[in-house]
Amino acid sequence: MRISELSEQTGVSIATLKFYLREGLLHSGEATSATRARYDATHVARVRLVRALIDGGGLSIAKARAVVDALEHPPESRHDLLGVAHRVIPYAGQDHEVSGEVRALIEALGWQVEPDAPALRMLSAAVDTARAAGLPVREEALAAYARGCLAVAEVDVSAAVGTRSPEEALATVVLGTLLIDPVLVALRRAAQEHLSGARARASRT
Amino acid sequence: MRISELSEQTGVSIATLKFYLREGLLHSGEATSATRARYDATHVARVRLVRALIDGGGLSIAKARAVVDALEHPPESRHDLLGVAHRVIPYAGQDHEVSGEVRALIEALGWQVEPDAPALRMLSAAVDTARAAGLPVREEALAAYARGCLAVAEVDVSAAVGTRSPEEALATVVLGTLLIDPVLVALRRAAQEHLSGARARASRT
Repeated sequence: MRISELSEQTGVSIATLKFYLREGLLHSGEATSATRARYDATHVARVRLVRALIDGGGLSIAKARAVVDALEHPPESRHDLLGVAHRVIPYAGQDHEVSGEVRALIEALGWQVEPDAPALRMLSAAVDTARAAGLPVREEALAAYARGCLAVAEVDVSAAVGTRSPEEALATVVLGTLLIDPVLVALRRAAQEHLSGARARASRT
Repeated sequence: MRISELSEQTGVSIATLKFYLREGLLHSGEATSATRARYDATHVARVRLVRALIDGGGLSIAKARAVVDALEHPPESRHDLLGVAHRVIPYAGQDHEVSGEVRALIEALGWQVEPDAPALRMLSAAVDTARAAGLPVREEALAAYARGCLAVAEVDVSAAVGTRSPEEALATVVLGTLLIDPVLVALRRAAQEHLSGARARASRT
């Protein structure tokens, strides 16, 4: 198909498609003349992915390019794809050291996570911030939260494993991580309302 | 104690304390002369709460005042306190209608939640955003996420019930909701890394 058809099929303007081509976010089409190229289904899939990463996931052009690079040079296993995904996803608190408490928690849980993983830095920073604001965060509470999050992550990992292509797997992990966070925040609040109401009703009877 | 001592004990400047008094965030002290007042432990507790809400939780002055008002005129039950907390906590997607899918999910879960609760509006908006970005969000996945979030909310509600005063309960709910969200985001990513690594190791052997 020509670039105009690629634009029609994806709903992305020709100017934006040319921008994607220049920025290395979209692979070149097959040249049919000095000024024309032919595009195929791989281009449609790529444009949709880039669109989802940038518009849906809020990634920068550079981060989206890192995802695309990982697809061009795919790592050996899907687990390594997750590593790529985690490197491009923004993490708060990346300058924070992993605390002794967090290391002990991960060990007690029996989780195998890189000792200086971004997730553990973010976790240490978030716990420190909560405590500094006067919120007591007990060790047992953290462990219980971790068990709830493990159940959530089971769903995430199953979704990524069930995908048909590396392209789909990577999109699922990156978008699933970024876009499901607000879903979980909302579900947590709904569950709080349900549980708190149930306790209030029980105490009245 | 005098205002200078209140400032010393809380680490909040006299100018800020006077601002809190003017804005109705802090109750007046007992007047000892035309220009002086005496403060006590209730003022120390209040200043720490306001500080935590504004600096720690990122609430606006108006939202912090709503929390303080709820403390001055405490609702009958701790469940109603949660209602106050949820009204001051910022929720994304508040203009969104609660979707039929979300209503069916809550019913299938057997959760008792107000039909137009902010949490359900936020949930509907978040699911729609994820789908619009090309992420498939299956019904069974949502139900599984909900079960993980229920485990998390059990911890939240127990923490709020275990507090000694309405002041502490309200602070626990508001700060716990706002400041624990990033803790859960980080734990989810750590759990993903753990589970994905375990699958990769299992598939190699």
